[in-house]
Amino acid sequence: MCYNPSVMDYLDTYAGKAVLITGGLGFIGSNLARRLVDLGAHVTVIDSLIPDYGGNLFNIDGYENRLIVNIADVRDPYAMRALVKGQDLLFNLAGQVSHMDSMTDPFTDLEINARSQLSILEACREENPDAKIIYAGTRQQYGKPRYLPLDEDHLQAPTDVNGVNKLAGEWYHVVYHTAYGLRTSSLRLTNTYGPRQLIKHNRQGFIGWFIRLAVEGKEIQLYGDGSQLRDLTYVDDVVDAFLRAGATDTANGGIYNLGGPAPISLLELASLIVEIAGRGSVTLVPWPEARKKIDIGDVYSSYARIEAALGWKPVTPLADGLARTVAYYTQHLARYTE
Amino acid sequence: MCYNPSVMDYLDTYAGKAVLITGGLGFIGSNLARRLVDLGAHVTVIDSLIPDYGGNLFNIDGYENRLIVNIADVRDPYAMRALVKGQDLLFNLAGQVSHMDSMTDPFTDLEINARSQLSILEACREENPDAKIIYAGTRQQYGKPRYLPLDEDHLQAPTDVNGVNKLAGEWYHVVYHTAYGLRTSSLRLTNTYGPRQLIKHNRQGFIGWFIRLAVEGKEIQLYGDGSQLRDLTYVDDVVDAFLRAGATDTANGGIYNLGGPAPISLLELASLIVEIAGRGSVTLVPWPEARKKIDIGDVYSSYARIEAALGWKPVTPLADGLARTVAYYTQHLARYTE
Repeated sequence: MCYNPSVMDYLDTYAGKAVLITGGLGFIGSNLARRLVDLGAHVTVIDSLIPDYGGNLFNIDGYENRLIVNIADVRDPYAMRALVKGQDLLFNLAGQVSHMDSMTDPFTDLEINARSQLSILEACREENPDAKIIYAGTRQQYGKPRYLPLDEDHLQAPTDVNGVNKLAGEWYHVVYHTAYGLRTSSLRLTNTYGPRQLIKHNRQGFIGWFIRLAVEGKEIQLYGDGSQLRDLTYVDDVVDAFLRAGATDTANGGIYNLGGPAPISLLELASLIVEIAGRGSVTLVPWPEARKKIDIGDVYSSYARIEAALGWKPVTPLADGLARTVAYYTQHLARYTE
Repeated sequence: MCYNPSVMDYLDTYAGKAVLITGGLGFIGSNLARRLVDLGAHVTVIDSLIPDYGGNLFNIDGYENRLIVNIADVRDPYAMRALVKGQDLLFNLAGQVSHMDSMTDPFTDLEINARSQLSILEACREENPDAKIIYAGTRQQYGKPRYLPLDEDHLQAPTDVNGVNKLAGEWYHVVYHTAYGLRTSSLRLTNTYGPRQLIKHNRQGFIGWFIRLAVEGKEIQLYGDGSQLRDLTYVDDVVDAFLRAGATDTANGGIYNLGGPAPISLLELASLIVEIAGRGSVTLVPWPEARKKIDIGDVYSSYARIEAALGWKPVTPLADGLARTVAYYTQHLARYTE
């Protein structure tokens, strides 16, 4: 049997470690924070709690006394400089994640997704150059696929301002590794789903919104024939990828796609959600012109590079992940809609 | 004979046109401004005249009364909003161009090369959505070549903050074409040389500095064995590429490399400059560690795409271009060193 100790023992490395998570009250950040607390890490979460961005104090329900919550904005360079001191690891997940908002307010997107990343890296370079830093990139950086599945050698050709700024934010991390030796790496996430996702509005992606509509017994509208393929990664699998990347210097300077178990059409996905929820319905409607312009067709990613380097692959079957997600929001709906 | 009217007649399209040039007192901007005035365009140049950036009032010597000079900074959104109104074309050449400065002061580089580009595009979208906009990108966006010559399908993997911000600045242009239909395109310049280049310090590239050292009869120091290959484009050829891209909607949404006649080693180049100048000398010295880290080895670009699309190719032989450049600085040295 093939056994790589540096990979297999990665969960043990977190006991006693000082870990900072930007965006730590958000969807992925809070799931990561809870897991790290369970592994024995000393966790500080930073979140700005900007309304509609995804930060939610209920996301750390039951963990309030087991981690430190620091309300701050990554755009505040002095706060960041103070907070990175003494940390062993930084999981850099704060971001403006709405593609639509990036077009209506491009400067806020730039400040959060590009400028703040540069500011955080400067803070680490000056105050804590040995920290391990893992950045959350996005497959949105690739834009409209030239071939599928998307691998890390695919051209980056973003189709919205958010994609451009996320790309810049990622490459600052790579440059600070190349030029200064900072121990950075980037995971390019695809569609992530699971408990603690923002479902208050539909501007942060379709999955959470579909799940909310089903749980509320409402109609899910799909554009066109709903045949566009997507891949989905369950949040626990995404958390596992961050834990692997954070535990080894193998990942330093590296960029890795995550990916889902297998691509699925939006029509199949919506139907599966409705079936699992036992409520809701699916309807096909024509494409709105503004959305059609920035649509990128089928898109799904190859995770071959991270599987080879860090042993990661998505292990949660879609139906299981969706069932857990539907159960979570059925129980806690008001915490995410009010 | 192959004849494409929209390409062949491109010089005639500029008579009577209102043209705005950001960075218009700089190296390429001023050469472009002079040419456009000669072609009958109504030219406004914008420049911030930030010391050490390249803007130089002597660059428009003899043309002062044939164009409008507006001293302003592209970081000033209100000035830009007012200035883009009523223009037929915008040549968007303002930038912080020192890779070294981008590492010592990354935020200024971000403000000028990324944020200001977004601001200019927003101004055009709101005040002048029909303007033709040509952006000056850079082969620095590619980083260390995976293969040569670099074509536009090569991965963008910048190795310094300047490369990341230039990349973001370019892709805002592409996104504003895709999403809003703005008539943008980008030329990715390689090493440009010629009259009116900054030679006051050596932080904006090696060619101008080599030429200054030779003209002053000093020693040109090369790192390592001087075998690194580069391609050089004479500024008149670069100006011609901007004029071609600005004259046709064929270029809208397009990205095009420029390139030089043939790659040449730094040792051959420096020796040729010394030979043409009839002064100076060439010495090989060991690599400084800080420079070695961000060096990218051999690099030169393919201009096949712009040749096919717009009929452009570099036509000035290197020895001719260097002779004209050496003659210019021999005559006007004090204007560029004091």
